[in-house]
Amino acid sequence: MKNSPPLDHAHLHARIAALAEIGAVEGGGCARLALTDEDKAGRDLVVSWMRAQGLAIHVDAIGNVFAIRAGRESGAPVMTGSHVDTVRTGGRFDGNLGVLAGLEACRALDAAGIVTRHPLCVAFFTNEEGARFQPDMMGSLVHAGGLSLEEALAATDGAGIAVGDELDRIGYRGTMAPGTIRPRAFVELHIEQGPVLEDSAVTIGAVTGVQGISWHEFTIGGVSAHAGTTPMRLRHDAGYVAAEIATFTRRLTREIGGTQVGTVGVVELRPNLINVIANQARLTVDLRNTDETNLREAEARLFAFVDATVAAEGCTVAVRKLARFEPVDFPPDMIARVERLAIARGRSVMRLPSGAGHDAQMLARLCPTAMIFVPSVKGLSHNVAEFTTPADIEAGADILLDLLLELAEA
Amino acid sequence: MKNSPPLDHAHLHARIAALAEIGAVEGGGCARLALTDEDKAGRDLVVSWMRAQGLAIHVDAIGNVFAIRAGRESGAPVMTGSHVDTVRTGGRFDGNLGVLAGLEACRALDAAGIVTRHPLCVAFFTNEEGARFQPDMMGSLVHAGGLSLEEALAATDGAGIAVGDELDRIGYRGTMAPGTIRPRAFVELHIEQGPVLEDSAVTIGAVTGVQGISWHEFTIGGVSAHAGTTPMRLRHDAGYVAAEIATFTRRLTREIGGTQVGTVGVVELRPNLINVIANQARLTVDLRNTDETNLREAEARLFAFVDATVAAEGCTVAVRKLARFEPVDFPPDMIARVERLAIARGRSVMRLPSGAGHDAQMLARLCPTAMIFVPSVKGLSHNVAEFTTPADIEAGADILLDLLLELAEA
Repeated sequence: MKNSPPLDHAHLHARIAALAEIGAVEGGGCARLALTDEDKAGRDLVVSWMRAQGLAIHVDAIGNVFAIRAGRESGAPVMTGSHVDTVRTGGRFDGNLGVLAGLEACRALDAAGIVTRHPLCVAFFTNEEGARFQPDMMGSLVHAGGLSLEEALAATDGAGIAVGDELDRIGYRGTMAPGTIRPRAFVELHIEQGPVLEDSAVTIGAVTGVQGISWHEFTIGGVSAHAGTTPMRLRHDAGYVAAEIATFTRRLTREIGGTQVGTVGVVELRPNLINVIANQARLTVDLRNTDETNLREAEARLFAFVDATVAAEGCTVAVRKLARFEPVDFPPDMIARVERLAIARGRSVMRLPSGAGHDAQMLARLCPTAMIFVPSVKGLSHNVAEFTTPADIEAGADILLDLLLELAEA
Repeated sequence: MKNSPPLDHAHLHARIAALAEIGAVEGGGCARLALTDEDKAGRDLVVSWMRAQGLAIHVDAIGNVFAIRAGRESGAPVMTGSHVDTVRTGGRFDGNLGVLAGLEACRALDAAGIVTRHPLCVAFFTNEEGARFQPDMMGSLVHAGGLSLEEALAATDGAGIAVGDELDRIGYRGTMAPGTIRPRAFVELHIEQGPVLEDSAVTIGAVTGVQGISWHEFTIGGVSAHAGTTPMRLRHDAGYVAAEIATFTRRLTREIGGTQVGTVGVVELRPNLINVIANQARLTVDLRNTDETNLREAEARLFAFVDATVAAEGCTVAVRKLARFEPVDFPPDMIARVERLAIARGRSVMRLPSGAGHDAQMLARLCPTAMIFVPSVKGLSHNVAEFTTPADIEAGADILLDLLLELAEA
């Protein structure tokens, strides 16, 4: 393996800051919802940098952008990348770091006159966040063949506007068929978006995989009645059922244990008045686990509890599955490479699963995949206060460069 | 005691229907929020009927309207009445029945040429519902001296508009000092607004008193974090705390037992997103009991549970008392009169407490007070589908007339 050339840390920080100017919101964050004018401006800036670096740019029919740096041999590239869309009150590092660090790795090789054996490819994928169009990780899912192009193009936002029309409007509906560029390996550098690395005072996370995700919406139907005049035995209180489900979700995480997490983030009552028993409650349950068997067990127990509680209160329930991804395990060899390279750089490193979804979990369907995490201060993300220290960004970008070089020479 | 003259049932039904035309909403209900144009139109119509009956009209400084029918002697009148404001999706009987049946009783006495010993007074009180301005039962509370006129006039709605300004605008800020007309007794005919009479197949409720009401709002402060990346042990989930409080409220009603009821009608999470732990939850707890000692016990247990749960989750809590009324017990003699008169008319009758607040509970601070309930179909009220059968309305109005005549001759 070659020693890595030096990476221009200052230039990377400057590009992160420049990209963060687009869609900037108060507090240091960004609002570049997928396929909006702000997303287009962010894409245009990143593509201008790709062009300036002499990379060959390909845009596929779902708007994923691939920038290829030729190798000594042709064939499947080693790919890196992430996304440049953000949530409505997003930070400047989520996604953007992985794309810009990949481009910086190419610049470092250019400066050192290194041509790798295999081509390198820096990609950004459409609508990773899912904040405007569902499902999230849309571009990488289509790339990996997990969602048809037609379905993805037809997805609409809250205003009824379709992905396909917005891609046309912003000029990012490319001609290349999704999945055309099949990588030989994929690496994604990303901020952790959680508190574990900081809590453990560790700089580099060697990501073992991505938790499975189960999202369900329950709409409970009850009967509105007067809070003062209706005896308890005659009630059909949708709000009470929702509360029981929410407290059960917490209990479930203790009973299943391990990596099981569970969150009720949405609760809405109707009519939502102090002295009226709710005739409707809508709530969402987010369950995640690194183990598919345990995740299924959690789902089964949740559904059984919901059914029993709804029946006991004389209510009704409608269930909608909002998302379901099985856990992804990255190959042990890829995890070990991250660990080894971190140690070689003198960095503290630990293995941990990703609690959030990432494009890498889709690419893992196609090729050996790794993720490198750097710490998020206070675990904050999807928050304008999202922050990763310059030193941690540099440490992560260095290891990304090392791993890309190692894989491209293999 | 004189035998009651016949009451013109058809005329009473016609007036109920005519008043329901004002602010009519689809489904047969009414929207006459206190001190709106619709409330003014409803008031104007009822006052025109009072005038047409030759009653002497007095309006006090909080907009309560009193219509007096002279007796053989001067002095304190026997008063009846209720309210003509409604909630946003109210029914046509809630409040209105008591006012219009009182006027109909006066018409019956007029037609029979009966002049009672004591004067009679038919009143309607301002803002009983509290749907636009808080507290509810505002007019009768000011009349009874439980709230200062200044505070009541200064109360504002969601748009910042004050009661005093609205009274001026609709022409109902009278010159009489509140409390000037002190009744010798008070009787209110009202729909039950609950399911108990219908459930028991009984026509007349002899109301024993009004439940004490305790309304509190809890605002829980937590920390927003990613639902996937935040281990359970590091969470400060405001939504979870709210759910625990809501399920505890139900448990509390079983533990306290008796007439204790408890309702969490309002729950609002922030940011209310499926994959974000809530950093704020606002919820209301409505507790009611006919026994003040038990109600205090329920409140104490609730507060202790809230404090312990908030502390265990590392959250914060702000508590706001929204309303607190002690239970009111009507005098046994007054309850017995309702029972006796119902039986004399051949009506089925049962004793029951009122689960809802009523103007009568405020008047009970001033004089011997009784309430007569008639059944609500399916217990519905504050609902456009609110309904009481014509036969039950007639039965209730007859007994109101009997009781007014009995008290006015005493």
